Amino acid sequence: MQQNMSPEELEALDAADPLAQFRQQFQLEGRLYFNGNSLGPPPRTTEDRIREVVEQQWRSSLIRGWNQHDWFSLPERVGDKIARLIGASPGEVVAGDSTTMCLLKLSAAALHATSRREIITDVCNFPTDLYVLDGLREMLGGDVCVRQVEPEAVASAISDRTALVSLTHCDFRSSRLHDMRGITAAAHAHGALAMWDLSHSVGALPVDLNECGVDLAVGCTYKFLNGGPGSPAFSFVARRHQARLQPVIRGWMGHEAPFAMSREFHPAPGIRGMVVGTPEVIALSAAECSVDLMLRADMGAIREKSLRLGDLLIALVEAGCGGRGLALATPRVHTERGSHIALRHPEAYAIMQALIDREIIGDFRAPDLMRFAIAPLYQRYVDIRTLADALRAVLDARLWDNPRYRQRLRVT
Amino acid sequence: MQQNMSPEELEALDAADPLAQFRQQFQLEGRLYFNGNSLGPPPRTTEDRIREVVEQQWRSSLIRGWNQHDWFSLPERVGDKIARLIGASPGEVVAGDSTTMCLLKLSAAALHATSRREIITDVCNFPTDLYVLDGLREMLGGDVCVRQVEPEAVASAISDRTALVSLTHCDFRSSRLHDMRGITAAAHAHGALAMWDLSHSVGALPVDLNECGVDLAVGCTYKFLNGGPGSPAFSFVARRHQARLQPVIRGWMGHEAPFAMSREFHPAPGIRGMVVGTPEVIALSAAECSVDLMLRADMGAIREKSLRLGDLLIALVEAGCGGRGLALATPRVHTERGSHIALRHPEAYAIMQALIDREIIGDFRAPDLMRFAIAPLYQRYVDIRTLADALRAVLDARLWDNPRYRQRLRVT
Repeated sequence: MQQNMSPEELEALDAADPLAQFRQQFQLEGRLYFNGNSLGPPPRTTEDRIREVVEQQWRSSLIRGWNQHDWFSLPERVGDKIARLIGASPGEVVAGDSTTMCLLKLSAAALHATSRREIITDVCNFPTDLYVLDGLREMLGGDVCVRQVEPEAVASAISDRTALVSLTHCDFRSSRLHDMRGITAAAHAHGALAMWDLSHSVGALPVDLNECGVDLAVGCTYKFLNGGPGSPAFSFVARRHQARLQPVIRGWMGHEAPFAMSREFHPAPGIRGMVVGTPEVIALSAAECSVDLMLRADMGAIREKSLRLGDLLIALVEAGCGGRGLALATPRVHTERGSHIALRHPEAYAIMQALIDREIIGDFRAPDLMRFAIAPLYQRYVDIRTLADALRAVLDARLWDNPRYRQRLRVT
Repeated sequence: MQQNMSPEELEALDAADPLAQFRQQFQLEGRLYFNGNSLGPPPRTTEDRIREVVEQQWRSSLIRGWNQHDWFSLPERVGDKIARLIGASPGEVVAGDSTTMCLLKLSAAALHATSRREIITDVCNFPTDLYVLDGLREMLGGDVCVRQVEPEAVASAISDRTALVSLTHCDFRSSRLHDMRGITAAAHAHGALAMWDLSHSVGALPVDLNECGVDLAVGCTYKFLNGGPGSPAFSFVARRHQARLQPVIRGWMGHEAPFAMSREFHPAPGIRGMVVGTPEVIALSAAECSVDLMLRADMGAIREKSLRLGDLLIALVEAGCGGRGLALATPRVHTERGSHIALRHPEAYAIMQALIDREIIGDFRAPDLMRFAIAPLYQRYVDIRTLADALRAVLDARLWDNPRYRQRLRVT
């Protein structure tokens, strides 16, 4: 990817883009949106589905919606579709609850099935993943221990005392990818289980859980899957573990016969046992529709375009913004990079506010990180050029000195 | 309430009903809906709010919705509104997660704060409440024990070994109310905490948690609050316990500074610490709007009308359906009754299917229970007469012998 490509050459790339047709699914209202790793925009079909679920299914079917629209099976139905994006098989994934609660469900089940008491994670893991493990350690007490090690030290930290290795595949700050296959194998070599958080991977790059031998996984549907703000997460349990890793976090919707209203819990066979409360019908329906859209694209084509857009952004920033205090925080090597590009700058916060003011929306992570998500379904090659030009203009004008860009919002 | 009131007299009651104005908020399409204790119908304002959140807030604000529409505060904002329905104070309730997960959050926190290991519940508790406690017992191991006693034996079962008394206020089968004040006092007399599940009470009758000295509570928003299928639940922790009952089920949205992305968990002060994952923006917005509608009504007037409608139904059924095998499963005494009327009949399933076929929608609970929810916001006195007449006609014609009414659906 050349930094000196002409506008015409970039337009030609867009014209030849096999994913170009997906852009019309999104109503971006003239903005360039680089925040799909925080909250994806609504596909038109998802907006339509939500209207249908509320104004037809709920209003007209009322309680009968559970049968007439099979709301009951939404966790597995959406799960089976997500499975196709992450190299899992039907019956290995259910959707529902927050990512945090899914992490808790799976880690609690993993610890319950072994006498080992050590969990290994890394210091770069997403905070909620660390908080879940920390809370579980305190709740279970005894000699449960959670070791937070450096990301490059994970494999060597695993031992025969390790029950569970809990990591996020794609680092939310740097976009660095962990070696899912290698670390999972290292866990297995010591008889431990590996649990992967796919929140920044699913829908952004090919993931092949079963090919990598992964035991457990969770992920988010409101980022690259465009499922809506706070949409439900998903849980994966490899089929070979489903009989052994019984749910200890239990609810009536994971019962083998919920409407028998039995006093004793007998888990539904397979992954359904990991369903807990009543399915979030509206949100799961929205997530299903957004996943359907993603399934119509080819994940190989998404990955190829993502890497090309990312390479282009890196090249343009390095050529155009050299000597202006920016530092690349994302690996250049394709096999080590997810689907966002992170840049450091001491004035990152104000620079991002200045870009947002120009309808170019990325995000900021304290203390000095700008993140630009690459979302091939709705981004064009020319958009990357516009972003790089705007970034250069903001830097050249030292717009970070403008007080209106320095004012802090609560959520950024 | 007389069983021989004329149609004109019932119409006069409807004309004088101070809640009559609320009926136009619901589009019941000619059906009589007696299933608001399972899934309330959508208020028009809630449908509008969902469209606004999806098609304006999400589509137009994208990630900035978190600030521009204060999605971040939805758990507390909705919680503070629910608080007004249940006699709680601002800052004592948060909304989010399923009822099951809320039960887990609170019971885990309660057990973590004491060395006592006994939980008391009753055999009539809703199944998911029992499953949560059962799973917690297995997860924590040691000498944690869960005693399921008969409902009338709860108070006497509490002892100085009891950590937590976990009960559902209104029995989902019979509509029988527990003595919230008396049992809470009995728990306190032994140094135990009382946790109440308000799923079948909130929005259906006045509840006064603080007046009764309740410690912990949870409840559902998709029943009498009309929040939508699978809408989020809520958690109450009395202010006096908030410093002591720290969250052990932890997520980034309960952190005092979520966007500091710290590796250590420091809970937000007060009830916010009980928030776990990312708020369910669309579903919480819908629930907020439905709660707003409920807050415009007077809970005393709702209760008064509910009891009158219930008394009328009992009187009409007893007068019109005598000798036809029906048995009342709901207490007659007002102080012991929630907001549904339950009737037993050996052919309850088929009878209910025949009623539903006539656009009169109640529900069935195995093996022999018909439940008719009383929802004063959208029911009329004349509707009760229509229901009673239809029930008599179905019984007289022995319609349960019709094979089409005997065919079992998965969810009923």
